[in-house]
Amino acid sequence: MISPSPWAPAAFAGWLDDTNDITKAFLAAGNVPDMINIAGGLPDPQVYPSPQIAEIAARAVTDFPAETLGYGPLNGLPELRAAIAARFSSDLLHLTSDNVLITTSGMQGLDLIGKVLLDEGDVIAGQFPTYLGALDAWRPRKPAVRKLLLQSNALDFTDVMRGAKFAYTVPNFSNPTGRLVPQSTRLALVEAARSTGAWLVEDDPYGGLNYDGPLPPSMLTLSAQSSAAGPNGAYEGPVIYLGTLSKLLVPGLRIGWVIAAPRMIDALTLAKQGSDMCTSGLNQRMACEILKAGLIESCNPTMLTLYRRRRDTLCAALQRDLSPWFDWDVPEGGMFVWLTARDQQFNTDDLFEIALEEQVCVSPSSVFDAEGRFRHGLRLNFTFNDEAKLDEAVRRLARATERLLTV
Amino acid sequence: MISPSPWAPAAFAGWLDDTNDITKAFLAAGNVPDMINIAGGLPDPQVYPSPQIAEIAARAVTDFPAETLGYGPLNGLPELRAAIAARFSSDLLHLTSDNVLITTSGMQGLDLIGKVLLDEGDVIAGQFPTYLGALDAWRPRKPAVRKLLLQSNALDFTDVMRGAKFAYTVPNFSNPTGRLVPQSTRLALVEAARSTGAWLVEDDPYGGLNYDGPLPPSMLTLSAQSSAAGPNGAYEGPVIYLGTLSKLLVPGLRIGWVIAAPRMIDALTLAKQGSDMCTSGLNQRMACEILKAGLIESCNPTMLTLYRRRRDTLCAALQRDLSPWFDWDVPEGGMFVWLTARDQQFNTDDLFEIALEEQVCVSPSSVFDAEGRFRHGLRLNFTFNDEAKLDEAVRRLARATERLLTV
Repeated sequence: MISPSPWAPAAFAGWLDDTNDITKAFLAAGNVPDMINIAGGLPDPQVYPSPQIAEIAARAVTDFPAETLGYGPLNGLPELRAAIAARFSSDLLHLTSDNVLITTSGMQGLDLIGKVLLDEGDVIAGQFPTYLGALDAWRPRKPAVRKLLLQSNALDFTDVMRGAKFAYTVPNFSNPTGRLVPQSTRLALVEAARSTGAWLVEDDPYGGLNYDGPLPPSMLTLSAQSSAAGPNGAYEGPVIYLGTLSKLLVPGLRIGWVIAAPRMIDALTLAKQGSDMCTSGLNQRMACEILKAGLIESCNPTMLTLYRRRRDTLCAALQRDLSPWFDWDVPEGGMFVWLTARDQQFNTDDLFEIALEEQVCVSPSSVFDAEGRFRHGLRLNFTFNDEAKLDEAVRRLARATERLLTV
Repeated sequence: MISPSPWAPAAFAGWLDDTNDITKAFLAAGNVPDMINIAGGLPDPQVYPSPQIAEIAARAVTDFPAETLGYGPLNGLPELRAAIAARFSSDLLHLTSDNVLITTSGMQGLDLIGKVLLDEGDVIAGQFPTYLGALDAWRPRKPAVRKLLLQSNALDFTDVMRGAKFAYTVPNFSNPTGRLVPQSTRLALVEAARSTGAWLVEDDPYGGLNYDGPLPPSMLTLSAQSSAAGPNGAYEGPVIYLGTLSKLLVPGLRIGWVIAAPRMIDALTLAKQGSDMCTSGLNQRMACEILKAGLIESCNPTMLTLYRRRRDTLCAALQRDLSPWFDWDVPEGGMFVWLTARDQQFNTDDLFEIALEEQVCVSPSSVFDAEGRFRHGLRLNFTFNDEAKLDEAVRRLARATERLLTV
């Protein structure tokens, strides 16, 4: 019979020792009444076009029962892959369905890139500071992360990218800095990718949230102009472009896409097979119908108006209450304002703790550094809360800052 | 400007060299007209209750817009986690929501288990022959796979499980063998897990497809009887149980769940965060409403009647055409009949190729062996095709067998 002795289980994999608990702190903060959370990167649910999506959901199941409720192709619904290829093609960039993989969220794109490119100890050149979620996605592969600094005027990235498996960038309204990477820097990154052999990941969740004007061309487009095309004219360049519905319309469908050279799409598809087999047919069919109905375009103006106003409210409050201690740029798009303390000894991990006591939750810069050492920056979100709450959040953050400085 | 030189990209991760192309062959076979595919593990779409699910989809978005279209908790919708805990609890097994993680498909459960338990070279004891998809999920972690043989009368598994991170089993109508693992073997596996410290993965996609009678208790239940309970009475034993909606009702929602000790759920949640952040709120809400409406229970009798008849048709045809060369057991449930050639020199990889020429696609045993060496077995599916097609598939397979033997 079964022994009653206590059970001593096998150990977890090594990378689990390296994770930080900040996300748990964020989540716990979400359950505290009266806490204002400006730490996350959440849309405001009021922008979701739920009546249209409810109708699309019902019609998808009714009109395509086997496709929406059954297993689908590993690499995605052919119609959705073709629609994404068409949406991102231009005179300068020719894409075919062979360039497209549908993923279960943009995050899955990051996970799959880690799986197909990283053996233990392999090098990533990551735009610094770096999106927390990308670091989370790659941690199980145990990479070494070099700092890729895009803010400087030095535009030669060959040294930092040489020997790296890939460079990771968020050129449109970077996470966490909100910064728009200019065209000259994009061209230099493409050039460095071509000369070093490093793949160039262009993660673009925020491109649709541009409040102040047009964007520079994507690195995907810029790299196509100097790359040979494959059979059928498919793109064959070094850029791996990641897109998602999450910030363009709704996160809840978990629909993302990767655009890349066919050999990269094939490898990612193999990795996806062992990750979740295929993305939900229902969610993919709904994404098809959302694109066809032009729902992204019809919702975008409302979203821009709402978020632009909130950005301006947040920045005005920062100017009023936090300008003695912090610097920031007003972001031209995206979801975040990035603050850096003028005093480099200022510790935003400490500020995070005191701010929680003042009932405001913020993102300290240490989580955007693979080594956890960058301690004088702060990321604030302006898309989720209304203007009154944003204003109050900054008042609380100012109180926390004053408390920290008088300890 | 950008150099026009050809681009030499960084190499893929090592594990990609070890994958086999059989899935691609399967998929290509799916596109050949007149091919009968009995290789996969697909349900028949005619069993999907699409009118009810269309209504559930629309109501989910209308009644819960923020929940279905926004980001959700990393570990799953609280109401769905509670419903799964309640569904699997009994007098012998006390589960709380802390024991439950919602996953994006059962496959994701396998992927996450690999992420949290396996460092390169770590050992798995895998029920042999082994589900192909599990081998796919763990290949990027580069494990060593020991053969766990459950067909023998020897019921001491401590040697094969000692030093392993986990044992992997499909006790209900195993994939690929269709075999129901008896209670004595289940108890011995639980005992070996407790004494060696190896976690015990109980993968149970097929438990709902039992055509001939009741099932033995799950290892989850058997292990609870000898395990101390944690706070709130949560299960604390060594079993990691994987369930999914895919074979109980529909695969297209990609909803699965893991039931395990809270410390394992916490680790898996951290891994899930970097895999796809959270499972679709829409799909999770739909799963909640499906459970509440009793849709699994109301559809199950139709499914059992249909699949039982097809199993019997396939086995009768095998008896008529393939009994000179192969042995098999009539499976009591699941989706597959497992054939072994009486001549151990018979090569089912060769048969696979000739069978494709005869327009029938089958699964050769080599894909269910981490080393690819088991060559005289064959897995046939009986759930997807109607009876006439199953009968014709066996005629074609018999022709292919005769051709192979007269080469």
